[in-house]
Parts: sequence; C-alpha cells; structure tokens
Amino acid sequence: MAFIHENFLLAGQAARRLYHAFAEPEPILDYHNHLSPKELAENRRFRNLTEIWLEGDHYKWRAMRANGVPEELCTGGAGPYQKFLAWARTVPYTLRNPLYHWTHLELKRYFGIEELLDETTAPAIWARTTEMLATDELSVHGILRKFHVKALCTTDDPIDDLRYHAQIAKNPMGTIVLPAFRPDKALNVHAPELYNPWLDALGEAAGIPVRSFQNLLDALGKRHDYFHAMGSRLSDHGLNCAPPVHGSESDAARIFERARNGQAASGAEQQLFAGVLMRYFGRLDAGKGWTKQLHLGARRGNNTRMLAQLGPDTGFDSIGDYPQIDALGNFLNALDADGSLPRMILYNLNPSDNYAMATMAGNFMDGSIAGKIQFGSGWWFLDQKEAMEWQMNALSNCGLLSRFAGMLTDSRSFMSYPRHEYFRRTLCNLIGNDIEAGLIPDSDALVGPMIRNICFANAKNFLGLPGVE
Amino acid sequence: MAFIHENFLLAGQAARRLYHAFAEPEPILDYHNHLSPKELAENRRFRNLTEIWLEGDHYKWRAMRANGVPEELCTGGAGPYQKFLAWARTVPYTLRNPLYHWTHLELKRYFGIEELLDETTAPAIWARTTEMLATDELSVHGILRKFHVKALCTTDDPIDDLRYHAQIAKNPMGTIVLPAFRPDKALNVHAPELYNPWLDALGEAAGIPVRSFQNLLDALGKRHDYFHAMGSRLSDHGLNCAPPVHGSESDAARIFERARNGQAASGAEQQLFAGVLMRYFGRLDAGKGWTKQLHLGARRGNNTRMLAQLGPDTGFDSIGDYPQIDALGNFLNALDADGSLPRMILYNLNPSDNYAMATMAGNFMDGSIAGKIQFGSGWWFLDQKEAMEWQMNALSNCGLLSRFAGMLTDSRSFMSYPRHEYFRRTLCNLIGNDIEAGLIPDSDALVGPMIRNICFANAKNFLGLPGVE
Amino acid sequence: MAFIHENFLLAGQAARRLYHAFAEPEPILDYHNHLSPKELAENRRFRNLTEIWLEGDHYKWRAMRANGVPEELCTGGAGPYQKFLAWARTVPYTLRNPLYHWTHLELKRYFGIEELLDETTAPAIWARTTEMLATDELSVHGILRKFHVKALCTTDDPIDDLRYHAQIAKNPMGTIVLPAFRPDKALNVHAPELYNPWLDALGEAAGIPVRSFQNLLDALGKRHDYFHAMGSRLSDHGLNCAPPVHGSESDAARIFERARNGQAASGAEQQLFAGVLMRYFGRLDAGKGWTKQLHLGARRGNNTRMLAQLGPDTGFDSIGDYPQIDALGNFLNALDADGSLPRMILYNLNPSDNYAMATMAGNFMDGSIAGKIQFGSGWWFLDQKEAMEWQMNALSNCGLLSRFAGMLTDSRSFMSYPRHEYFRRTLCNLIGNDIEAGLIPDSDALVGPMIRNICFANAKNFLGLPGVE
Repeated sequence: MAFIHENFLLAGQAARRLYHAFAEPEPILDYHNHLSPKELAENRRFRNLTEIWLEGDHYKWRAMRANGVPEELCTGGAGPYQKFLAWARTVPYTLRNPLYHWTHLELKRYFGIEELLDETTAPAIWARTTEMLATDELSVHGILRKFHVKALCTTDDPIDDLRYHAQIAKNPMGTIVLPAFRPDKALNVHAPELYNPWLDALGEAAGIPVRSFQNLLDALGKRHDYFHAMGSRLSDHGLNCAPPVHGSESDAARIFERARNGQAASGAEQQLFAGVLMRYFGRLDAGKGWTKQLHLGARRGNNTRMLAQLGPDTGFDSIGDYPQIDALGNFLNALDADGSLPRMILYNLNPSDNYAMATMAGNFMDGSIAGKIQFGSGWWFLDQKEAMEWQMNALSNCGLLSRFAGMLTDSRSFMSYPRHEYFRRTLCNLIGNDIEAGLIPDSDALVGPMIRNICFANAKNFLGLPGVE
Repeated sequence: MAFIHENFLLAGQAARRLYHAFAEPEPILDYHNHLSPKELAENRRFRNLTEIWLEGDHYKWRAMRANGVPEELCTGGAGPYQKFLAWARTVPYTLRNPLYHWTHLELKRYFGIEELLDETTAPAIWARTTEMLATDELSVHGILRKFHVKALCTTDDPIDDLRYHAQIAKNPMGTIVLPAFRPDKALNVHAPELYNPWLDALGEAAGIPVRSFQNLLDALGKRHDYFHAMGSRLSDHGLNCAPPVHGSESDAARIFERARNGQAASGAEQQLFAGVLMRYFGRLDAGKGWTKQLHLGARRGNNTRMLAQLGPDTGFDSIGDYPQIDALGNFLNALDADGSLPRMILYNLNPSDNYAMATMAGNFMDGSIAGKIQFGSGWWFLDQKEAMEWQMNALSNCGLLSRFAGMLTDSRSFMSYPRHEYFRRTLCNLIGNDIEAGLIPDSDALVGPMIRNICFANAKNFLGLPGVE
Repeated sequence: MAFIHENFLLAGQAARRLYHAFAEPEPILDYHNHLSPKELAENRRFRNLTEIWLEGDHYKWRAMRANGVPEELCTGGAGPYQKFLAWARTVPYTLRNPLYHWTHLELKRYFGIEELLDETTAPAIWARTTEMLATDELSVHGILRKFHVKALCTTDDPIDDLRYHAQIAKNPMGTIVLPAFRPDKALNVHAPELYNPWLDALGEAAGIPVRSFQNLLDALGKRHDYFHAMGSRLSDHGLNCAPPVHGSESDAARIFERARNGQAASGAEQQLFAGVLMRYFGRLDAGKGWTKQLHLGARRGNNTRMLAQLGPDTGFDSIGDYPQIDALGNFLNALDADGSLPRMILYNLNPSDNYAMATMAGNFMDGSIAGKIQFGSGWWFLDQKEAMEWQMNALSNCGLLSRFAGMLTDSRSFMSYPRHEYFRRTLCNLIGNDIEAGLIPDSDALVGPMIRNICFANAKNFLGLPGVE
C-alpha cells in the first residue's frame, strides 16, 4: 500500500467516514498566508521542484542544516538540482518530523508520485515533476483550482499599493484573493533607520505626509480604509507578547517625535508605543467589523551571524517562553472596556501556553457572535499532528471546538495546500477516535455539521469576506 | 446504546472490572466545595433545572457566551425556561467540552434521562425534571443520600458564625457537614474599603476588637479555634502564587496599621503582608493537625466591564502563567524550617506547572504521614478527562499516586456529585489501560486497594475529619 | 506471564520486531553518569542489595519519604536489612512511578528474579541477591560486561587528579572509561568560603597558583588539556538557566578578586561572572572538538533543614520554572558569533520547555556535523516513559530524531544499566506504534538504521571518544 493512501492519518472507521463524508468535499478558505500577490496575479509557473518547493522554505533549510548540509546547498549558490538532491538525501532523516508527511503528501497530490523521496528516487522524481510543472494544471491558478481554494488572504504592508490585488480583481480567477493589513512596521520606533523611510512611504501611500503622531494615525487610518475598499477584512500582528496598555497618546507622540528625528526608543518605550498603536488598530478593526489576528510567542532572529548573512525568515527563529497572559488579558480588557474589541484570532507558538490562552479567549465573548475571540490553529512549529491535536484539545476543553474557524496555511509556498487536508484528517481522526471511545455520541447528524463548519463555514461566517459565500 | 452507559469512559476489560469492583461501591468524601450551608441545613428543594443547574454555574455561562448567547439569557432577566432553552441550544455545541459529559451524566444520574439535550428534547426534559425535582429524592438531603456522600466540607469565611453548621450538627442528616476556614479576606490590605468592614466583623465574631496587627492575629486564632470546635480540619487559600517569605511581623504590622487607617498597601506590600499572614496560618493549621489547601494559578476578574456588572465568579476568570515554583518552594521551606508545616494539598491551575509542582511537593515529605504534601486533583478548567489524566500522570511519575487523596467537587451546585463518578471512571480507565499494556501487573490484590484508597480511604485517613470512619 | 517479559513496553508487532532486531543487540555507550572512578578501578563488590541499590539513591529515598517512612530507614542509622525492608514495603505503593518498572527490571536483569518485590517476597529476595552479589558476575566489571557497556564517561571536578582513570587505562577492563570535565565549582564567587579552598586545590592541580582571574583561566585551561590527554571529550554544567552574556572579562576579574579576598559576589554578579566563564569554557571545548553538556532547569536544595542535615543530592531537589529561552538563545548566539560554539547537548528538566528548547537547538546547526546542537534525552524526573516520549516527540517534531545521540544513565548506581533497555523499548514502542498507525512507512530498511543509530552509532560518531569504534 502506498504511504499516502486514502485513509492516511485516519485510524478508525468513524474517522474515515467523517473525513470522506464531511471534510473532504469542503472548499478551502485560506484566510492567512504569505503568498505573493504578484505571483498570484501573474499566474507564475515554476521551472522545477526547487523553485516551487525549496525557494524560501525555511522549514526545509532548518532540517537540512540539522542534517549537516552546508549552507551552500540550502540558501547558497548551488544549482537547483544539487539543492533538490541535498533535500532528497535529507528526507529519510526527517522521519517523525511533519516534513516527512508534507513532502510525500505534496508529491502525491501535485504529481501523483507515490515513491518515497530519497537519494535513489530523486532523479526520476525530478524529471517527472519538472515536466508536470510546465503544464497549466500546476501554474498558480491551476493549483488553486485543483485544491478548490474558494478564497485566500495574503499579508500586506499598509504602504503596499495592492496593485496586484487590483489586477486580480479586474481579472478574476475563480479564487477570491484579498489583502490583509499587517502594520508591524508602524511599531519600529526603536529602529529609526528602518522606521523613517517606512514613514515616508506610508505618507506617500496615504497622501498624508507623516510629520506628527497624529499624522501617523491618520495615514494608517486612511490605508485601513483603502484596504477595506480592496476587500480586506483581516489585520495581523506578529508580537512576542501583547503590548502593555498603560501608555497614553501623548506618551506615544513624544516617543514618535524622537524616533522621527532619528532617536531610537528604548525597549520599554517601544513597548509602550506599541500598546498605544495596537489599541488604535483595535479601534480601526472594530469599527469596520474586521477580525484581528495576533501571532504571539515567537523569538525571531536568534542567530545574529546568519541574520546578517541571510536576513529574516530564513530558519533561525524559535519558540519563546515569554509570560503571555497578564499582557494579553490587559490588552483584550482595554479594548473591551473601550468598546473597541474586534473579533480576534489568537495564535500561540508555545504549546505550554495553550490552556491559559484558550481560557483567556473565553473571558471576552460578549454574545455578539459565536466564538468572538478565537484560539487559532497550531502555528509554525505547532502546525503538525501532535500540536494541532493539543490546540484542538485545549480549545475543546476550555472552549467550544464547534465554533473554531479552523485551518490556514500561513505559508509562503504554493505547495502547501495539502496542509488543509492534513488538518482535516487530523481533526476527523481526533473526533472519530472520540466516537469509537464513546466520548462523543455516534451521530452523524450531530458531528457531521461540526466537521463541515470547522473546515469551511465557520471561517466564512466569522470573517465575512466580501464575495465569499 | 445510551450515550451514558454502564461502561462510559472505561475502554477495556480491566478498567471496567476495576471500576465496578473497587471504585463504584466507595462512598464519597467531598472535602472541598462551595455548597451553601444554609441550603444544606434547610434541605433546599429546587423548582426547576434552571434553579439547580444554571443558577450560579459560570461554566455554563461561559459556554453560552462563547456560543453567542446574549447575557440576558445567561445571568440576565430572562425567565427560567428561556434560560434553560438557551442552554439546551448550546449543549450540542459543547461537544468535546467536559460540559457535554457532565450534562448527560447529570441528566442520567439525577433523572434517569438518556436523551441528548438539545433544542428539540428540551421541552420534555424540562417537564420531566420539574416534576422529579418536586420529590424528596431530589431535595438537598435526598441528593446527598442518593450519592452516598459520607461527608462534605464547605468553604467559610472566618467571620461566619457557622450557624447552619450548628443547626446541621443538631439535626444530623446522614452526611457529615463540616466547615473549612478560608481567610482570603484577611489579606486585603490593598483594598481598605473592603478590608476595614471585614475587620470590624471579624472583631465582632471573635470578641476581640481588631485595632492592631496583634489583634488581627489573635482574632483569627480565635476563629480558627472556633472552626476547630465546629469540626473544621481544613483551611483553604486562593492565591495567584505563594506569597514571599521575607517579611517580618513588624513589617506586616506597619502595613496593617496604614490599611486600618484607610491607606491602601501597594502590590508589593500586600504580597509581603500576605507572606507573614500565610506563615501564621501555617502555624495555626500545623498546631491543630489540619490540612491546608492552596489553590494556585488563577487570574481572576479579567473582564473589568463584566466584573463591574456582575461581580466576581461569574465566568471571566482564566488560567494565569505566573512563575510558581520559587515562591512555593520558599513558602513550604519557611514553614518546614519553622517546624510549622501542616499537611497540605496543592491545587494547580496551569497544566504546564504540573510536573514542577508535583516535584516540589516531594521535597517536604517528612516521614510523619504518607503523602504529607499532596498534589491535588485537577481543578476548575482542569477538572476534566484530559487534565485529570495529566495530573494523575504527573503525580504518578513524580510521586506516589497510591497516596493520592483523590477527588472533590469544588462546586457551587448540588448537581455536581457525578463528578466523583467521572473522576473514578477516569482513574480506573487510566489504570486499566496500564494493566492491559502490561505497565502494571494484572493483580487485583495489588491494584484494587489502591483504587479503593484513592476513591475514599486516603482522604479519610489523611484529613482525619471528626466522625468520618 | 512474568511482569518483565520479553515484550515489556512493546505494544505491537512492529515495536517488538524493531526492538529485538535493531535495538537489543547494540552495545551501550553511557556517555554521562556519576559512577565512582574508584569503584570502577577497584572493581567494587557489593555485600547486599542495600549497598548497590539504596546507598546514594535519592529517587528511592524520596519515594520512601512520600510513603511516610522515617528518615532513619532512608539515610539514617538503621541496618541494611531494615532499610531494604522499608524499601520493599514501599515498592507496591510506587505503582505507575518509574521506580516500579526499574525495580523489577533490575531484579530480573541482574538476578533473574521475577517475583514482585514487597514485604512478603523481601526475605527470599534478600537472601538470593546477597548470594549472587558475591559472585564475579555482579562485581562492577562483571556488570559492565553483562550489559555490553562499550564505554562510559564519569563526571569529574577539574581539580581531580583522575588517578583512577589512569589506573583503569593501565589495566583495561573491556569497557572504556573516560572522565568528563564538570567545572561547576569555578562559578562559586558567591560563596568564598567554598570557593577559595577549591581555587587553592585547582592551583595545585594545575601547577598555577590562582591569584588572579587570568590565573584562573590559565589553570582551568591546563586542567582541560590534562582531561583531554586522559581521554575526556565532554564537559558538563549544571545550571538553573544559561548565564547572561553581557559581562566582560574585566568585570569578571573584579568580581573574582573580591571573592578571592573573601567578599561574596551578589546574585547578579555571580551570574555575570558565570557568563564570562561559560563563554571561556565554550572556547576550550570548541577548540578541542569536545561536546558541551548543559543540564538546565533544576531547583536544588529546596529543603534547607534537610540540606543542613544530609547535604546536597539527597532527594530534596525539584523541577524549576525559570524562563530559559532568552538566556539560552543569547548564550548560544554569543558562542556562535565568536566562532566558538562547540557541539552541545541541552538537557531540559521542565517538560513545559521541551518544544521551545528543541527549536532553539535548531537555530545553531551550522552544517558542520549532523545534529550539532542536540536536544538531550529526558533527564532526572523526566527519565521515564511519559517524559522520554515527550522529549522524543518534541525532538521529532521540531528537529531530527534520526540524529539523536540517545540515552545515558546519569546515574550514581551500577544497578542502572537497564535504563538503556528501558529507553530502547520506549523508543521502539513509539516508532512501532507510528508504523502500525501508518505514520511511518513500514520499512525496516528505512527505520532499522535509525533505531540502531539512536541506540549507539549516533553517540559514537557525535562524541568521537578515543578508542570507541
């Protein structure tokens, strides 16, 4: 039997029935990813597996480095086939890592390949995939069709003119493509050398020269309006922890002015500034009925030598062990007290915080909508069977799994769409096992809609993306 | 087959045998709960399910809010049947939450109802339960008889005159009802507006006007004596973390005097004051052979808007992620060094701290009694299958499960007695699975007494409650 | 069937096949333990089970204390048989604790005993084991032969003259015995009364009187050279957390001078000093291709009364809940930036930190060798089935299990060699279950070498111990 078979990950009869009857048919709503709007608009084609699979995939680079592969073959100057071969040699050593599953699931779903990838199978797999990648079916648009991606949301800087989104809107492609508002750079008062050029660009994008803190707020608000007009209904923030809420706008203005004049804010000032701005962003999102996403708990750029060499997002990031709960509780409470708490999705990177974070979400449900504060799906290092199960168990035990908005790829790669399948199989396996253990009634009428909703309808109803029915 | 059947939660033959042979027949010793002494004394009857089930149950309110139910139907002015209906509509959405199990276990054990609760079954269930609640069998005393509750301990303020306990003592009811000493309000030096009226009441109760810190100690000591005379053998404290131990009584006296004059202590002062008083409480408990309970790790009242609207304990509390271990180790060590370490039960709310806390308990076993420092059962958000298993596994791996004092409801509701059954099934399932996996010898002579002890005898022997044999 | 049977811990057919075909035949490389070089050199014989089993075993003492056994029978003046009997009485109460498994596995592997130990079986077991311990087979050398221990590394103070290692080198015994460099005492600037005598001894050992900080570095360097000449390829450090890296050598020199003059460093100064010295140790290890071990996360000596009575390592230690990741990341990064990052093994004591620590290891793989920064096996309280599985799952999901250097006993006792078997069974059970669940291809060609490598070859290749092939 092939390794990736019909019932991969599905342990029992109940799991298999649920998956095939309720999960598999649902379309995909990939509401958070890092796909390139340009490649989406231009319907990129990929010349080979290295382009579509290894370019920019820091998960694979990490695994190769851990396997003793020199940088030359990860991000360096080696040729595409040599890089592919280095990866193929590493694959057998990734047993029990999610990469082993993803790799073979992707080879199967994109190319129908059932051989296990290793040094010996690499040449034939390279030849076959290169050929297939030249076809329409594996162009960007072909891939989105193949995986029934009803809609997807990219992640965009407020200064972005969203030209590719406009282009896509003019020439629709079957999949609805929307932007999302990620204003992390607006918080960079500790790094004026990065901050000031960004503020200049922001001013230009908004048509409001950013000379004062008030200008900053106005310019961001105008970009938020523009994103809304372009169909955005989501914002996103990458934070170690939620920021403190004790700062005032006049504190922030003072810190801003110094940064605008080239004087870096201290760590504490930056945090205070972030807290003021994050509350402002909360008001913007709440005002327009958007959903705010917080990605909490990463410790990024741990290896300064490699950061200098390769830049960020190259595989030197980690799970942090920051205290999360006081800050998060205070932040949510400040927004709630202010009447400006938007719908939220909290993504947590340290599994030790799952339970605490799931309970914190439960303190700010206000009856306005089911699952108003979502405890989001397992993220990054946690986007795998064990940790997705932990997230779903935490959400189940401390909240309502039925109201879960479900999966998103968070990926930079067009090869990641089977992650939705991976999630759905994991979900159905969990529920199916519960049914077989008598922990859940064996009733498709009860369980079927829950599965279906978690796969698609919950996200659709929760996010209210324009055009997504 | 009914959802709640004879072998609910019991996966294998060994688990089933253990449960029915050893766990099921044991009586209940519910040594920590928040039941109302008045309702116990007066043998309250409940007019309908809303009264006995939804009144005061913040677990259910949280689930309803997370399901998008407006406050009106949770704690608000809606009628009893409407509230019940809102709950019934929410139940199917609680699949995988412990509420789903509790709900159906309670319907079965109190009313013999096997239908799954939802909007369609709600009317008939309401009718049937309303009728049955009018019978003696489901009065407070009837319920305690039904569930073989040999003894229970309420949770009482030192200023309480325990009149209902006295009334019960005069008219025994089959179940021994004892008070427990919970002096949390004695630590409130940061909130003089709450503290001073409480001190006045304490002075009155003790017959010692509380003008000085020494008066406070004397008055508390006198109330401790009184509670002892009334059968109390347990104290209880709700704390974020164990308090620091570096403060002196003269520090505490200074802080006390300022608070008595209306000047609020700072956060640090309050902690220091708490440390002094908690060591005093340790000496009181150790001196009389009591057991001290610490409930650690909650972050309460996260939603200030709702706290203002509804008050505490209404479903806006969370698991905290405070550092616990240094403070707890120092606190236990200070008592031990002082020769005043009482028996203790440590309840932990953040499952990430389970292992560390279980090992800390092991540092203060002094050979005076088996399991002197108990790692207590899964509490609040952790009072469910997954987290009870974690607690038992942590205790097993880092200590002696055999010496575990076992389950307590911690509940405000007379509908919670099946939680003991839930715990026992979970325990037997865990042990039975171990037997079937060959991890424990398949010997009833070895395992049977362990099960029985954890269900009842360990708590009985450990706590030494008067009259409980 | 005996409790410890052929397939103990091995749930399915795949697990059984893997264990017997691939794991069982591999020799043992016990690269970290606390065995006595003297007993190794002198081929100690043990008069009875109390000598070989209970002497120095704080795991058992903790269990006995938790079972209510007075200190007299743990570490006190009671006779050997009485102590044994106290332990035998405790054993049935350790069900589900790893001690229960270890006890019976050890009785079986050393003595062929299959009876379960308790009060009734104790006399016969005492008699039989006493007799067998008198034979060559159960002398220290006999034991090492019996368990196919190819090599082992003790843990040694830099001031140690390694005379017993020299003696062993002259009279080889089949097992290669090497020292390891554990310079924890070099960090004790906060305790001059301990520090100064140690510095005197260090100076004497190195032939460099230690008057200045530079002398200290030189003397440590010379001892490092000497250890290298004696075959050491490992260093080891026991730390709450990784030390800070912001201190300079001149800061350290100033702190050192004050300590040398009897003035204790503050906690913060000690940490800063530790950071400087730890970076120096990193350079020493990196320069000679050694592997550095960090044991992180213990909170030791929690019970000061018992510490004063019995000294350290007597069973009053705990898992701490210190923040680990910022400090560890900064420490690894400082060494990497400096070009002096040696191979490392990070041992973590708090299971809540597993994932974060496993990801941190992944940030400093530099392609020089597979698995350069190892996430080490479950340690101390985590050296048991549940926690070894957690460690392997964390390593699998966040890194490459295939490159794992595997098991070590970390033990003070010659009775601990079956812990390697215990680990291997747990490993094979985990992998076998994955195969049966279809999570890993059912291919011995793929999985067999991985198992074999984790049992022996990975450690051999990674550590490069002289003479170990």
